[in-house]
Amino acid sequence: MKALFFDGEKLSLVNLPKPDRPEGWVLIKVKLAGICSTDLEILKGYMSFKGVPGHEFVGEVVEGPEEILGKRVVGEINVSCGKCDMCKGGLKKHCRNIRVLGIKGLNGAFSEYIVLPVENVHILPNSISDEEAVFVEPLAAAFQVLEQVHILPTFKVMILGDGKLGLLISKVLSYSGISHVCVGKHEEKLEKARKWGARTLLLSDISEDMFGEYDVVVDATGRKSGLKLATLLVRPQGIVVLKTTIRDLSEIDVSQIVVKEITLIGSRCGPFEPAIKALESGKIVVKDMIDSVFNLEDFQKAFERAKSSLKVILRL
Amino acid sequence: MKALFFDGEKLSLVNLPKPDRPEGWVLIKVKLAGICSTDLEILKGYMSFKGVPGHEFVGEVVEGPEEILGKRVVGEINVSCGKCDMCKGGLKKHCRNIRVLGIKGLNGAFSEYIVLPVENVHILPNSISDEEAVFVEPLAAAFQVLEQVHILPTFKVMILGDGKLGLLISKVLSYSGISHVCVGKHEEKLEKARKWGARTLLLSDISEDMFGEYDVVVDATGRKSGLKLATLLVRPQGIVVLKTTIRDLSEIDVSQIVVKEITLIGSRCGPFEPAIKALESGKIVVKDMIDSVFNLEDFQKAFERAKSSLKVILRL
Repeated sequence: MKALFFDGEKLSLVNLPKPDRPEGWVLIKVKLAGICSTDLEILKGYMSFKGVPGHEFVGEVVEGPEEILGKRVVGEINVSCGKCDMCKGGLKKHCRNIRVLGIKGLNGAFSEYIVLPVENVHILPNSISDEEAVFVEPLAAAFQVLEQVHILPTFKVMILGDGKLGLLISKVLSYSGISHVCVGKHEEKLEKARKWGARTLLLSDISEDMFGEYDVVVDATGRKSGLKLATLLVRPQGIVVLKTTIRDLSEIDVSQIVVKEITLIGSRCGPFEPAIKALESGKIVVKDMIDSVFNLEDFQKAFERAKSSLKVILRL
Repeated sequence: MKALFFDGEKLSLVNLPKPDRPEGWVLIKVKLAGICSTDLEILKGYMSFKGVPGHEFVGEVVEGPEEILGKRVVGEINVSCGKCDMCKGGLKKHCRNIRVLGIKGLNGAFSEYIVLPVENVHILPNSISDEEAVFVEPLAAAFQVLEQVHILPTFKVMILGDGKLGLLISKVLSYSGISHVCVGKHEEKLEKARKWGARTLLLSDISEDMFGEYDVVVDATGRKSGLKLATLLVRPQGIVVLKTTIRDLSEIDVSQIVVKEITLIGSRCGPFEPAIKALESGKIVVKDMIDSVFNLEDFQKAFERAKSSLKVILRL
């Protein structure tokens, strides 16, 4: 089968054998796979991953239990052992022996076929198109903010970053009736955000009189400078949600966090159910975030384009 | 009056006029004042403070409302405006116009006399000695951990740092029936901690198999490396309480915080009432933490000694 393989230095189109399907797993024929900022970081060395990247996908179950055979599905990316203290304590996503599709120890979706445990798979309703389905995984990660933080109606909320994840979080907050301001560098992306009701602000328009004003600041900048800015903008005893995963270390002023008694919460993957429901209802629209769809053979163009645009999708 | 004055470069014994007492404030004749690690950081440039440092004290009210005149008191160090959004929202400690005794905008307790608002002052019970009373402020900061984090009986708790604050936090946890391990570099300090029931561990005995094992890790190292170690030791979705205030920036692996979904909580000053109550009851003993008492004139020896020992106290 065709797949994109990252050997630690470069990404190449290769021929690989179809993956073996363990007991209790399904074999999925991938239809589309989205390129995420995490994939771009992986190509810079993040997670020291070697193998087939790709973790946002939609596909069809071609081998597995009869009741889901032939179904169109998306899949949760964390594969847990079920036996360690985290799994037994209900934190399967944080399994001690975790493998993560296309990120850690498990070949991912830039590939004709993948395998995943049956329990990771969600059947899609017909009303969600293939292109939309690619957004279920990142949209779930956006919903995770609401799983972790109780945002009061009186809160002033700011999202830093108008990239893919920042805009999806903005969509989720608007969908959930949470007023907020979305900060970014790109007027054309911020214009999109205004359409779903977000207020927006250019990064260059942030001024010192905004420091200490926000109850919740979400850092979705994907840059090491994001955390520092977030700690300045958040109010004393406020909450900073960290969504940025990058290879580099960030410098922070620990004293600022102590003196302001800031709470910083790391936030990763999220629940698929509300993401699927929101797309099915039509109340969260994601089509406006699709930049382009490339054939797998054109992956180099696709990855280049993904660096500076919204969602780029690969067709398997 | 005699006072220690820090001009931004060095600390000197000087003669200053007695401070003016604003309406609603009291004038306090300081008896003893403790040297805190924050004072040592101030002498390195922390908070860019210039003036009289010192914020741990016991003294006698010599001017003020009749009902507290002549009383032996300790005092909360945060002086708020009462008018800003933080004050009105119940977060006086985080007042937008805050002054902090001996730390920001207000001369401190290494001085014969200080002034503080009446509302900041707590009258001491007779059973607490002057030397013990100096510990009320830092002990309150230790109690703040319990104000911010709900520590379940099943939690594995670790304190990093066997300095003044680390040991006081350990005392507070033991007093509150919370089993924990105290980590430090100094066998003689750890031996003290074992006496009040803490388990202890030398920093050099920390090994990789302990990473990801602790539900709550308190960083009271006072070093920029503390945060990094805490994020390694805490379990996924665990809590790191940050107590370190230092002038330097810390480097952190933001991705570690995101992937493990760690919650990081900055923690500063705390409530005086439980600290006074714990000392009064005799259930928290602090005498074992007094290293030495110096006359104000011997401040240079005292500050030198404070760098490598437990509590050093100045006598005014």
